[in-house]
Amino acid sequence: MGKEVKSINIKEIKDPKFLKDLSIEELELLCASIREEIIDKTSINGGHIASNLGVVELTVALHSVFDFDKDKLLLDVGHQCYTHKILTGRSLEHLRKKDGISGFEKRYESIYDCFEAGHSSTSLSAAYGMAVVRDQGKPEDYYNVVAVIGDGAITSGLAFEGLNNIGRGDSKVIIVFNDNEMSISKTTGGFARFLQRVRTSVSYNKKKRAYQRFMCKTRFGLWIFKLTSKIKNKVKRMFLSSNIFDTMGFAYIGPIDGHNIKELQKAFRQAKKSSVSVVIHTLTVKGKGYKYAEEDRSGKWHGVPPFNKETGEFLKASSYNSWSKEIADLLYDFMKEHNKTILINPAMIEGSELNNIFKDFKSRCYDVGICESHAFSMASGIALNGYHPIISIYSTFMQRAFDEIQQDLARMNLNCTILIDRAGLIGADGETHQGIFDEAMLYTMPNVTITMPSNKSEAKVLLDESFQNHGVFSIRYPRDILHNSLTDIHFNYGEWLIVREEVNNSAVIVTFGPIIEEIKKLFSHIDIVNAIYQKPIMDYNVQRLLKYKRIIIYNPYATKEGFANNLVELLTLYYYKGEIIIVAIKEDFIKAGTQSEQMEECGVSLKQLKLIINSEKGVH
Amino acid sequence: MGKEVKSINIKEIKDPKFLKDLSIEELELLCASIREEIIDKTSINGGHIASNLGVVELTVALHSVFDFDKDKLLLDVGHQCYTHKILTGRSLEHLRKKDGISGFEKRYESIYDCFEAGHSSTSLSAAYGMAVVRDQGKPEDYYNVVAVIGDGAITSGLAFEGLNNIGRGDSKVIIVFNDNEMSISKTTGGFARFLQRVRTSVSYNKKKRAYQRFMCKTRFGLWIFKLTSKIKNKVKRMFLSSNIFDTMGFAYIGPIDGHNIKELQKAFRQAKKSSVSVVIHTLTVKGKGYKYAEEDRSGKWHGVPPFNKETGEFLKASSYNSWSKEIADLLYDFMKEHNKTILINPAMIEGSELNNIFKDFKSRCYDVGICESHAFSMASGIALNGYHPIISIYSTFMQRAFDEIQQDLARMNLNCTILIDRAGLIGADGETHQGIFDEAMLYTMPNVTITMPSNKSEAKVLLDESFQNHGVFSIRYPRDILHNSLTDIHFNYGEWLIVREEVNNSAVIVTFGPIIEEIKKLFSHIDIVNAIYQKPIMDYNVQRLLKYKRIIIYNPYATKEGFANNLVELLTLYYYKGEIIIVAIKEDFIKAGTQSEQMEECGVSLKQLKLIINSEKGVH
Repeated sequence: MGKEVKSINIKEIKDPKFLKDLSIEELELLCASIREEIIDKTSINGGHIASNLGVVELTVALHSVFDFDKDKLLLDVGHQCYTHKILTGRSLEHLRKKDGISGFEKRYESIYDCFEAGHSSTSLSAAYGMAVVRDQGKPEDYYNVVAVIGDGAITSGLAFEGLNNIGRGDSKVIIVFNDNEMSISKTTGGFARFLQRVRTSVSYNKKKRAYQRFMCKTRFGLWIFKLTSKIKNKVKRMFLSSNIFDTMGFAYIGPIDGHNIKELQKAFRQAKKSSVSVVIHTLTVKGKGYKYAEEDRSGKWHGVPPFNKETGEFLKASSYNSWSKEIADLLYDFMKEHNKTILINPAMIEGSELNNIFKDFKSRCYDVGICESHAFSMASGIALNGYHPIISIYSTFMQRAFDEIQQDLARMNLNCTILIDRAGLIGADGETHQGIFDEAMLYTMPNVTITMPSNKSEAKVLLDESFQNHGVFSIRYPRDILHNSLTDIHFNYGEWLIVREEVNNSAVIVTFGPIIEEIKKLFSHIDIVNAIYQKPIMDYNVQRLLKYKRIIIYNPYATKEGFANNLVELLTLYYYKGEIIIVAIKEDFIKAGTQSEQMEECGVSLKQLKLIINSEKGVH
Repeated sequence: MGKEVKSINIKEIKDPKFLKDLSIEELELLCASIREEIIDKTSINGGHIASNLGVVELTVALHSVFDFDKDKLLLDVGHQCYTHKILTGRSLEHLRKKDGISGFEKRYESIYDCFEAGHSSTSLSAAYGMAVVRDQGKPEDYYNVVAVIGDGAITSGLAFEGLNNIGRGDSKVIIVFNDNEMSISKTTGGFARFLQRVRTSVSYNKKKRAYQRFMCKTRFGLWIFKLTSKIKNKVKRMFLSSNIFDTMGFAYIGPIDGHNIKELQKAFRQAKKSSVSVVIHTLTVKGKGYKYAEEDRSGKWHGVPPFNKETGEFLKASSYNSWSKEIADLLYDFMKEHNKTILINPAMIEGSELNNIFKDFKSRCYDVGICESHAFSMASGIALNGYHPIISIYSTFMQRAFDEIQQDLARMNLNCTILIDRAGLIGADGETHQGIFDEAMLYTMPNVTITMPSNKSEAKVLLDESFQNHGVFSIRYPRDILHNSLTDIHFNYGEWLIVREEVNNSAVIVTFGPIIEEIKKLFSHIDIVNAIYQKPIMDYNVQRLLKYKRIIIYNPYATKEGFANNLVELLTLYYYKGEIIIVAIKEDFIKAGTQSEQMEECGVSLKQLKLIINSEKGVH
């Protein structure tokens, strides 16, 4: 006793091996420094502050018990990796910047990152795959496989598939269940109800022990206890179980305080020794240690822009609203006007600015949690019974529901509106969250309309049109601010707008989306067509292009496999013999950076477009 | 009581209303006739015999309690609909034939079909959507929503998402859980383990009552029972529950005998009265009443071709093997040669002829159940830890894993082999099972190779090549027989094979797959290129085409959004000014029929190709 408490300078950390020598007090001191660093660096760079503050002790405890240069650590989604990054010698200085440290696990950054994610709920299945490979090898090469997953991610069907398959019991996986009661925003559904019951008390085991102690106080009680236990246990073994996890074949430890390092270490050591797969149920507080984030119940502090540390105010880059907000405002009026509409959103109410709608049209709004597949199958049931479903979703998450969009909506040609938020390049979240693939994905499906407005007025026309029996009607909009106000315009289903058409121009730019404003300014001697409808492409729109010597298809919001290639094919069918130039996002996974850095990297910046157009024969 | 037992002629059934007047004996008699009809008609037309024989009583009991012209019946997958079709006045005479009755629920066939599926596990989410709409309406318009789902389908993540969201408790759904212990083939995983425990005994409630009776035999026992019950129930209410379903907020009835009409009726009436969502757990026997199907444990009798009723022998259309079998044989040798490979298959071992592999390489084979998403995320874990995963999957089911293929494999550029069975038009299963979309889907993803062999020798080269660090390597093959034997050939990654190149020919057909044999015979004055690699398209392959006046891209195995459009785009980049003709499958959902009827309908039959080629300017 009387041992000196050592303070660690987190800037000097090279790897997490030193943790093994620290006392609980020293680890707690370290956690305080890490917490401060996270608040400090996200206030400058922005980032996933709340989830990271929730797992400081948990991550420190994990690294103090396991050896993750050999053992495998899979962070579900990965946006809770900041403590892990600090402990493995990575600075948060350039967090989420081009060529800086990613806000997610990345294999190229460190040997301690053995896994990569970004979309939720994949960690259990991947962990199982890793455990399966381990068990093919020699016993001396054994390593632990540890997946950390939150209570939002675990309600996704994919996580259940993972649990169910690990439950076969052939290859051991350790699951750290990080239960903060809300994940991105409040977790919903039957599973959440079960968790609530577990949470409301200390733990099943403690309760059981209390009963045992009570009964064993007298010899008579002990006798009763033994007699009834025998029968009870037999019944219980067959039919009852303390919770879903042990029903499925897991050893279950918990729930334990996820901010108590000693308890965590004990549980992890126990899990290490277990012969079967384990779930360690930890209760954590999202945003722990930073008042504003800790008190947030809406998800506002999930992913944040730079903010003022003292006041908790977000530093706004612009006084204009985001597309998300403007579309939400239009949707508000739309839902008010059409009462046979039902809105579905998978756990992104805050991100897509839907709070007001969920408040004022409560009985027609459904937050389905991280269940994108369910969202679209549910929509099919709604449409089959005569209501008009509206699904609001991020572009990158929509691909989790390819089959349900295609089979349950498009195949039956059911009417619905899909509002695709964060379409195009998205900035700091990087390669796992780009909204550049959904257009090509939707292009492979019959009965699907794809549109992208360039301003709020067009968005309003499209939203109204989506209610007019066109099957699956999607409206894409970018992660960006919106300068325009609302004016009264009109155009028909499928119609493209002529932005500029002059007698002497021999070239035309076919493009769409908010970029049009800048195109107009930059290219004064080229005609411009606003191809609001990317699908279907009406014949008359194509025919109008045939007179040009040069057609430039410019799509900085998606890969060429969708609109661009299909327009080329149609031009071919019309024996178009002029020059076609395609400037679209290159088919690749684009890393973190600002949106304009990413445009440059993809070869779709306005500067690059200008160069290509000005070159005599501009092959892209 | 001496009442005459009425026998029903099933050919005279117009609608199911008459069921309400029948006695249990009469309903049982009817079930016998229906069973006979199902065996008879599937022996002629082929079909999903086993699942249909399992739900005869269940379906009859449902229609005798509910009114499905108003109430909603959602059959998960839908391939257990034959009794439902008979009871709603539809003959199985032309089952699964062009313009005949579909083997699935179809809204255009009957008002009793309010739902459509084909892919599994969508019914719960859709049912919830329907219930949500109902509860927006007036109380007097109330209808029951009943989903029938099997024990295979319920282990899919989507079904869990549905359960979880219904578990919110706001809109009541009745779930009939058809538990035949094996679904398509044997159900695996932790959930199955739970079910097994429930099944092994009569029911939790019965057991509990037995315990109660035992304890209450003496006054002393009664006293103990009361004392312990009080504590026990308090503990139990908080932490225990009899099973996953009531944990999630459902009233649970069962398990009951799914072939006992009286028990079924009682349960359905009870469910109707319940104020909350209900799960009725029924135990059924797949293939019930037909010896061969009943005894099958492998899934051989899941979906069958025409067969001899007496001997149970399948009537083979050909003495040649299927592509599935030939690919499985190649895979067998491949797994033998490369011991660091792991095979994953989602519940289609029999369909893809993988039995021998699963038997002989047991420790490296995983049947993950109907969990396509999990299959690919698990594969990522395997690849990350140095083994080579092979995923064998039907084309149409692969789209359930778009996100996992793209994010977890392609994004990290991990090596794996995807064997895509039943690519192209698939015949009798119709629009929900066509394998024509996967090529375009995969085309939207970076780092993915897409190939299709025309014979077994090419398939072998591709399979070997897939092991050589090319990232995600997919090999597509059709639902068809295979004439070729194995010869020793070689070609490079990305290389196209020149099938015919003659000095005087000014046109070329660019095609691939087994159709090439027939193309060679039909078109003697046109050059032919075998584009084995649909993606990537190497520059030198494109350059070789530029000399032709006419390029015909012929793809009877996929829609034009994939290979065809991308080749056109590349030709455009090379300023190709000749004529391009695309003959590919039209982007549509193609109904049941023979494969050649479907080719005709899609405009890709050889006859149609010939017409187009022979026309002076052949626009398709």
